[in-house]
Amino acid sequence: MTKVRIGLIGYGVVGRGFVAAIKKNRAVIYDKTGIELELSAVADLNIASSYDQFLEDVPFKTRDAEELVTSPNIDIVVELIGGYTVAKEFITKAIANKKYVVTANKALLAQFGREIFSQADEAGVGVGFEASCGGGIPLISVLKEDLAANNILEVCAIINGTANFILTRMTYEGATYETALAEAKTLGYAEADPTFDVEGIDSAHKITLLSSIAFGTWVDFKKVYTEGITKISTVDINFAKELGCTIKLLAIGKRTEKGIDVRVHPTIISLKHRLAAVNDSFNAVLVKGDIVGETFHLGRGAGSLPTGSAVAADVIKLSKEIVNRTAPRIPPLGFLSPKELNLTDIKDVESEYYLRFETEDTPGVLSGVAGVLAKNSVSIKSALQRPYENELQIPMVFLTHTTTGRQIDDCLKEIIRFPFIKGEPVAIRVEEEG
Amino acid sequence: MTKVRIGLIGYGVVGRGFVAAIKKNRAVIYDKTGIELELSAVADLNIASSYDQFLEDVPFKTRDAEELVTSPNIDIVVELIGGYTVAKEFITKAIANKKYVVTANKALLAQFGREIFSQADEAGVGVGFEASCGGGIPLISVLKEDLAANNILEVCAIINGTANFILTRMTYEGATYETALAEAKTLGYAEADPTFDVEGIDSAHKITLLSSIAFGTWVDFKKVYTEGITKISTVDINFAKELGCTIKLLAIGKRTEKGIDVRVHPTIISLKHRLAAVNDSFNAVLVKGDIVGETFHLGRGAGSLPTGSAVAADVIKLSKEIVNRTAPRIPPLGFLSPKELNLTDIKDVESEYYLRFETEDTPGVLSGVAGVLAKNSVSIKSALQRPYENELQIPMVFLTHTTTGRQIDDCLKEIIRFPFIKGEPVAIRVEEEG
Repeated sequence: MTKVRIGLIGYGVVGRGFVAAIKKNRAVIYDKTGIELELSAVADLNIASSYDQFLEDVPFKTRDAEELVTSPNIDIVVELIGGYTVAKEFITKAIANKKYVVTANKALLAQFGREIFSQADEAGVGVGFEASCGGGIPLISVLKEDLAANNILEVCAIINGTANFILTRMTYEGATYETALAEAKTLGYAEADPTFDVEGIDSAHKITLLSSIAFGTWVDFKKVYTEGITKISTVDINFAKELGCTIKLLAIGKRTEKGIDVRVHPTIISLKHRLAAVNDSFNAVLVKGDIVGETFHLGRGAGSLPTGSAVAADVIKLSKEIVNRTAPRIPPLGFLSPKELNLTDIKDVESEYYLRFETEDTPGVLSGVAGVLAKNSVSIKSALQRPYENELQIPMVFLTHTTTGRQIDDCLKEIIRFPFIKGEPVAIRVEEEG
Repeated sequence: MTKVRIGLIGYGVVGRGFVAAIKKNRAVIYDKTGIELELSAVADLNIASSYDQFLEDVPFKTRDAEELVTSPNIDIVVELIGGYTVAKEFITKAIANKKYVVTANKALLAQFGREIFSQADEAGVGVGFEASCGGGIPLISVLKEDLAANNILEVCAIINGTANFILTRMTYEGATYETALAEAKTLGYAEADPTFDVEGIDSAHKITLLSSIAFGTWVDFKKVYTEGITKISTVDINFAKELGCTIKLLAIGKRTEKGIDVRVHPTIISLKHRLAAVNDSFNAVLVKGDIVGETFHLGRGAGSLPTGSAVAADVIKLSKEIVNRTAPRIPPLGFLSPKELNLTDIKDVESEYYLRFETEDTPGVLSGVAGVLAKNSVSIKSALQRPYENELQIPMVFLTHTTTGRQIDDCLKEIIRFPFIKGEPVAIRVEEEG
């Protein structure tokens, strides 16, 4: 058997990209692998209206994915509908029916991956999810296979194209958050409800998966500290520029002495940081391994074709196992037995901080604020106080030396009580050059 | 069998890195793969003097690699001695004895890969060579597997750390070529005889392999246009800076309408080009696929541990095939049958050019040179003529629009005959932003 039969659930943006890839490059794929990928079935609720040339010769088209996951004529089920409910049901049923599964569903895997992967393991089938993190960038396979001889020390990533597009517009075009978001919607980079993207939840799903693979553990998505970009203003972006820095929404996973540290938040990084030049809707991931040192991987993190490319890569890899009749070469998450690793409380995570306070122009402001920082053992690396044009309040910006989230919280609680402080203080973590 | 027995030939820089990786991370690798890598034998001409802690429990140490490639107790032979002669003999013999082979030997594979891979194919054994291009950067596997659904359109790379280190020093420290080369030698980045690195030969070996994989053909190394960095001067580096550009030694493989275009030469690229920020001894590769778009991969291209990481990754991947008793999942070069693709003559390759002429300060110079360019249909994009301080001759710099190597050659032949032209003209190809 050199033909592998694919059943696709969900003919939306990514589904179309995947089908376009395997149809357009059918001969290329055969030449590279000796395998013929046959799209045997497509299930989509709107299958009647979503008809196009690529579906013409698909023998089985249905609204009912149920038929597809139980069909004896399907080898690999490709789930591209997203979401938690029916997607989970279809994947579970496909595995129960001994189908190999490929999915791009990070939200599902970040929350129910442990359950799904253990079912797949028992059934002896493979689950591919390269497309779930970083779109077209080879990433999951890099962590699982190419860097397999490494103890991974750190994964630092820009893995949400929508948030990155918005921050890029704010940084280089001076757009406000609101206009940049509106533009992202117009261009199709942001959905009508952009919550998952701008609140960092999508990034948290992805770093949950990447950190799990990297550190050989099961990261609990619910415990991953997640902070989005909705409070980032051009004022802070401009101060960051003055400091030779830029603001990015980073997803970070680090191995620490005590366990691991996994989090998503806006971050100030030097313009020399490899991630600083990753703009627009690009995604990129910096990986540090104890043997290989630093590797850096960049590409389109979303979009029909780039994501379709990753889905197709998984289908091809799993096809080889099906053809060879071998068990999956590696466990889905890339390790045999999950280690229990302590996840550092965000309050204990250490970093340098950027702080901004809006203050009245009265005597004693600097000494008041600096006094609180000193009392809480937060050491100041640099300070900047300078009036705005045409505004009464004065911004006061500090860069601190390394401190904990707890110390910063304690400072802010106290500082906010000063009568001269106007509005909400801003605290943004700073990551060292990578 | 979960134990895989490795025989290593060559305990030099990369050999030590590989052994350090599999010894230090023995438990990590087992946890990720379920496979125990046993270093069963090491052959090295200086085995007596190269003794260290990692070799202590190696059961078989010898000066004679012959014993190792024929031993029934070895599953994978790792060849890390380099060179064309004995390395080829050992690899050939290992394959004849049904051993899987891992090598970092780009010089050997670029010239004899076709023969070696076809032997391996007949014997049904796998050959891994991830470490041969880009050191620790996952690259071969990315082209062969992760981007398998793509028609690869272009591979554009900085894949020689020595040359890149030298150009970086010349660009950012103002060093001359000679002092930068001396520094590279002191730091161990350049060998006593740096010919392969600075003349682009090493890059040509690597782009021969990468292009073969990318385009599904056998690129003939001898036909790859190869030009090194020995003639690059700080004068041109400084003019490039003024133009918002930098000079890099690029290895380029492109799919064209008529076939392919593979070459190595110093190249002027915009500072916005992704490869412009790849400095020091880092390597990086920009890949363009018809489905995925652009992906970018960066890391340490050489060095004991980074290269050892890639060797170990190959050993782990091949070990899984050995354990599963499956034939290699994919052909070594990633395609079933090589296509015959026409390699464009360098004289027909089109690009923009940077030209510099040193001229006497006499009337008629600009009109003379510009006249020759016009006569040969070379269109000028921008021109710059400006006296040096304290020197009589005047540099005249042009950026041309897209033209062919042949047209430029014709111009240079004619221009050099003007009596006001001093010394050798400089012509450097310009690559568009990538």
